[in-house]
Formats: sequence, C-alpha cells, structure tokens
Amino acid sequence: MSDDVDIMRARLSGLVDPAILDDPAQLALRHAAAVWSCLTEPGDGIAGTLVDALGAVHALTVALTEPGDRDLQDSTLNAARRRWMPRVGGLDDAFERARLSGVRLVTSDDDDWPAGLSDLGAHAPRCLWVRGDVRSIGSERSCVALVGARAATSYGEHVASEFSAALAGDGITVVSGGAYGIDGMAHRAALATGGPTLAFLAGGVDRPYPAGHDDLLRRVAESGGAIAAEVPCGTTPTKWRFLQRNRLIAASTHATVVIEAGWRSGSLNTAGHAAALGRPLGAVPGPVTSAASAGCHRLFREFGAQCVTTPDEVRELIGFDRERGSGSAAAGRTDDRTRLLDALSRRTPRSTEEIARRAGFDPGVAKAMLGVLELEGGVRRHADEWTRI
Amino acid sequence: MSDDVDIMRARLSGLVDPAILDDPAQLALRHAAAVWSCLTEPGDGIAGTLVDALGAVHALTVALTEPGDRDLQDSTLNAARRRWMPRVGGLDDAFERARLSGVRLVTSDDDDWPAGLSDLGAHAPRCLWVRGDVRSIGSERSCVALVGARAATSYGEHVASEFSAALAGDGITVVSGGAYGIDGMAHRAALATGGPTLAFLAGGVDRPYPAGHDDLLRRVAESGGAIAAEVPCGTTPTKWRFLQRNRLIAASTHATVVIEAGWRSGSLNTAGHAAALGRPLGAVPGPVTSAASAGCHRLFREFGAQCVTTPDEVRELIGFDRERGSGSAAAGRTDDRTRLLDALSRRTPRSTEEIARRAGFDPGVAKAMLGVLELEGGVRRHADEWTRI
Repeated sequence: MSDDVDIMRARLSGLVDPAILDDPAQLALRHAAAVWSCLTEPGDGIAGTLVDALGAVHALTVALTEPGDRDLQDSTLNAARRRWMPRVGGLDDAFERARLSGVRLVTSDDDDWPAGLSDLGAHAPRCLWVRGDVRSIGSERSCVALVGARAATSYGEHVASEFSAALAGDGITVVSGGAYGIDGMAHRAALATGGPTLAFLAGGVDRPYPAGHDDLLRRVAESGGAIAAEVPCGTTPTKWRFLQRNRLIAASTHATVVIEAGWRSGSLNTAGHAAALGRPLGAVPGPVTSAASAGCHRLFREFGAQCVTTPDEVRELIGFDRERGSGSAAAGRTDDRTRLLDALSRRTPRSTEEIARRAGFDPGVAKAMLGVLELEGGVRRHADEWTRI
Repeated sequence: MSDDVDIMRARLSGLVDPAILDDPAQLALRHAAAVWSCLTEPGDGIAGTLVDALGAVHALTVALTEPGDRDLQDSTLNAARRRWMPRVGGLDDAFERARLSGVRLVTSDDDDWPAGLSDLGAHAPRCLWVRGDVRSIGSERSCVALVGARAATSYGEHVASEFSAALAGDGITVVSGGAYGIDGMAHRAALATGGPTLAFLAGGVDRPYPAGHDDLLRRVAESGGAIAAEVPCGTTPTKWRFLQRNRLIAASTHATVVIEAGWRSGSLNTAGHAAALGRPLGAVPGPVTSAASAGCHRLFREFGAQCVTTPDEVRELIGFDRERGSGSAAAGRTDDRTRLLDALSRRTPRSTEEIARRAGFDPGVAKAMLGVLELEGGVRRHADEWTRI
C-alpha cells in the first residue's frame, strides 16, 4: 500500500494542494477521481453509479479487479470493465501531460468544485482538469453560459460581445465552450472588461481546441479565468465529448443563454441540458429571415425559453442583483453565506434560531442574511422556517 | 309612428337589404343600431349596458327622452345623455354621406356580422359601416390580424408581405388597420394574391385615413374585401378611436400577429385586446438591435405571445388545416391542391409523373403546383421525387 501511495503522490504532485499529498485518504480520493476520468468516457453512467454506491476509491478497486466468479463474466459491470481496462496503460502519461501544462485537478471534494455539476447525478464528471485560476470555476459567484453557433453572423457576434462585456463588467462569470463564433466572442468581450471567463472544452486542456483559439484560450487561463475539461490531457475532442461537454456548461451555470443557433445547432443541446436540469434558459431573438436565429426561435416555441434582448434581462434570468453585486471581491461575505447555507436543509425546514445555532451566527444576523438570500432565490421561507433551494 | 318609419326608411335606403326596408321591426333594429353608432364614441359602456338591457330600439327611446323626474337629472344616464344629445343633429348627414359612398350597414342582427365582436360585451360596436363586400367581414372563413408599426423597417415589411401573401393564398382573410408600414404591406400582399383582405378604420369609411392609402383602401374595398368602421361616415379618426378600433381587429379575428412594433406601439394595444379576449397572440421576432422589434419581444416576455417565424406557424396559431382549406374564393384551387396532396405519400417519395397520374393532372400542371407547394412548405423534394410533409 505504501507503493500505491508513492505512485499516487508522484502522479498528483503539482496537480493538487501540497497538503493533500501528505494526507493518504485525501490523496486516494483525488487520485481515484482522476483515474476514473482517464478510464471512462464522459457521462459513463455505469462508472457513475458504481462511484456513487461505493465511493471513488473502493469503486476503482472493484473496477480494476478481474472477477473470479464466472457468473460475473457477462455482467454489465464486466462489459464496462472491458471498456475501461485498455486505458489503464495511459494513466501515467495523462498525469505527466497535465503536470507539464500546469494543470490543476479539482474534484467534488474540493471547495472550488462547481456545485451545480452534482445535479448531473450518476452522469456528473468525477473531476475537472483545469488550466488557470481554479477558484474561477467555483460557484459562489454568479455565472451565466453564453453560447451559440460557430457559424455566427455579425449580428450574433455583436450581441454576444455586448452581453458578455456588460455581464462580465458586473463580475458575473461568462461561461462558454471556446468555439469559433458566439463562444469566442463571449470569451473575448469578457476578457476585454477584465472579468473572469471560463471555457469548458471537449478535449484535453493541454492542447485546447480549436487550434485557432490557442491564443484566446491561453489568455482566458491567464486572466483570472480558466479552461476546464473532464477528460484528461491528451484527449482529442469527439462528437460525443462535445455533446457531453455541453452538459457541464449547462450544469455549472445559473442560466444558459443561446445567442444565435441554427435549426440543428449544438447549442440547442446545451439548452436542452439546461432545461432538463431546471436551469433558466434564455434565447436571443433575431430576424426570421436569418437561419442563424432559427434555433433560438425554436427554443421559444419548443423549450419555453425566455426571450432575452438586453444584459439586464440576462441578469433577471439568473436573479442577479446589480446593487449588491457579487464576485470574488465579496469573498468574505460569501464565506458567511456558505456557512449559513450549509446550516440549511433542502428538505427539512429549520427555524432561524436553529440555523443560527448550526452556523454559529447571532440570530439577528442570520435572520437578515436569510432575508437577503430569499430575495436572491437561494432559500425558501415556510412561515418561520427555511429550506435551501 | 308612420312618420318615424318613413324617416328610418329614407335614412337606411341603399344601406341595407331592400327587404329590411319593408319590415318595420327589422328596420327599427338597424336604424337604432346606426343611430347609437352616431351618438356615441366607440366603446361607450353606458350605451352598451343600456342596449344590452333594453334592446337597441327601446334603449334609444329612453336615451332620447328628457327625464321629467328631477332625481334623475344627475344620474349617470343623464350625464351620458348630455354627451349623446348634441349629436342628434348630425344624424341625417351621416346617413346621407354613407349612401353617397356606397356604404352598407351591418349589425349583430345580420348574418354577415363578425361573431367575435360580441365577445366585447357591453363594449361591442352597435354596427359596422362597410365599404366593399359585406360577406368578407363575416366570420365563417378563417381570418387573422396582421398588424404592426407604421414606422416599419424593410425587414418588417418583407415579413408582412411574405406572411400575408402565403395566408391570403390559402383563402385566409388578412385583417389589418389600413395604416402605413406593416398594415399597408399586409393589405397589399393579400390583394396581390387575389385573397380578400379587411381593413378596420378609426374614422369614417367615406374618407379613409391615411389619405396616402386612398388608392390602396379603395382597392381593398373593390377586390372582394372591405373597409369597415364602427363610427359613421364623416367621423375623423382620433387617438381614442384608434385605440378602440384596435379592439375590433382583435375581436373579429381568430388570432392577432404583431409583425413589428416599437416599445410603445399602438399594435401592443391590439395585442393586449387579443390577449384579454383569450385570442391566440403571436409576434414575429427581430434583431434585438432594432427598435422596431422591441414591442414584439415585449409581447413574448409580458404577454406570453407565441413566437411565429413562418406562415405555417401562423396557420397553427389559428388552427387552420391546410388540407381542408377554407375560403370561398379559393375553393376551386384548394380542391386541386387537396387532390394533389392526396396523391403524395408522407413516406415514399414519388415522381412528378406518378403524382400527376394518381391525381389526374397534366404532368406540367402537377410540376408547377408541386413547386408552389414546396415553397409553402407542404411538400418536400428528393431529387426528382416528392413526399408530403
């Protein structure tokens, strides 16, 4: 077992907080999450179910142990195992590439994990490989997905640019997919305002795709934002990985806004994930004579998307209050908020007094904060008791 | 009383079916409705309530009789009477102008009355003064209101023209307000297809407003359609009358579609009437950068308007079944179309020759019709073969 710890430590060195390297249990958790990401395709429900049931570490041991029982040879698990095993040989390479690219590993055990990803259940990613500021992928700050067609028109690029600049200027993180067209304009305009922006990629973050956005994505990573992927370094993007990547964009943000999309645009897939997750979904109208807006109009008709025409309407969609603002500058307050939210249950209503006691706040302070959170849509009041939303 | 009948007969001569002139009861009904229209402003709820309670004829007697009882001097009715009485002197002039302009009078006692107007209750018009084919204002045929801003853009005018031509081509009556911009384009395109179109005016139909649409509105009246108003001839349009006219457009049609509208466009008033009456409401999206589409986007957000981008989506809004078609003028052509569509399969592509054979058409005719149907979205071309959509 000491060998195993050494291997894990060598693999994760430079990818995680040094303190974790000295904590075998924490180390094993991160290592298992990363290995799962290397062995499976995004959204692998068998792996997800196994990890949810046994925990990543134990699940990995089970997965990597050939069953002696012949009855299990043809089980679903064993079939999955036959998908996973061929990738074991590439593990060290993946970690090495990540280290060389200055990548950090973030898992659901880390504070910076985007909480919304857990709503994906068994299809949630096991980890994210991140280049840039890992704190920017965390979910304390308001964030919105601005996505759209690669084949954007100048109208769509104009709107993407206007919206992104205005939202990023308010400290809202603009999340997109790093592609040509709408995505690129959204990142670019956010960068121009100095606001953090986040790109979820379908392939490894060591060699971001598309190559023509090499410089743009490098700047995203170096300007307080990040580029992130659930697939390890060295992975090429595929059609499947693009579709799965879209669920990360939808799940990690407070709302998805489609700016321009053709009738069969991949952005509609992102919108579909957002709708399925119950996230607010917006779309920007355009001329009915423009094929690049046909997908947006389809979202109005078929998905009940909200029509958004101004950055203010996007703020409304995510429940963002400009006067209170948000963003990392408010980190102190955010910690208080997190403590308070941690003291609430999603199911069982609790009194203000009990919440104050659990969170360690003065009841008067807790009451005021709950009022603010209620306005922001973070908690729900039930007479004198509260639940988390 | 015989004097009264003579007066009524003289006034309505030429304005109603000759048989009515010889039926004192029917004559009195029409005459009272017309007089009410002359004495009151559109939407006068006191008059409406009185007529609903007593019938137009008895209500008129009450209205024109000065109350002896001093207690009634300050009643609501008496206040209304003081509005109405000064107009009695203009009655003969209104009837005379109507006769000179070839106007017909239509009331809720006539078969051609648009049934939807009765949904306005006490605010329903008492009669319509109509130039053109009174049958075109009846409601057996499918009809849709296409309305929008006077300050339309070329985009809006293009959409108005495309929609109106396609709908009128199906025998759907296109109803609008005769104004510059969207309204004018809607009438013009309907006329171009030979379909009937109907303009509700805010002033008298003897001198249609705006003067610049004199020729257009004359053609509307002479091409199987009509121009109609609830105010008598000689009445000038006012702000109030425009707003009230809008309720006629909304109430008399199966759906209202706003094609372009500024943030405070009068078309939103028509849309509001449609929504209040429970009529389907559609709006056409446009660029968020165009002030002329801001009102349409507002309708999506605030009125839950349906997003319509094609004539097919308008047909869907009014529940129009193309296969059964409708509209008396297009009956012959619609039958041909039905025969042709019946010869197509939804699954198996068939050649033009085979379709012509099955439908019993000359192949050249079938080919031309298929081309038209393809443009309208009724059939799909597969190289040299066709399927039905």
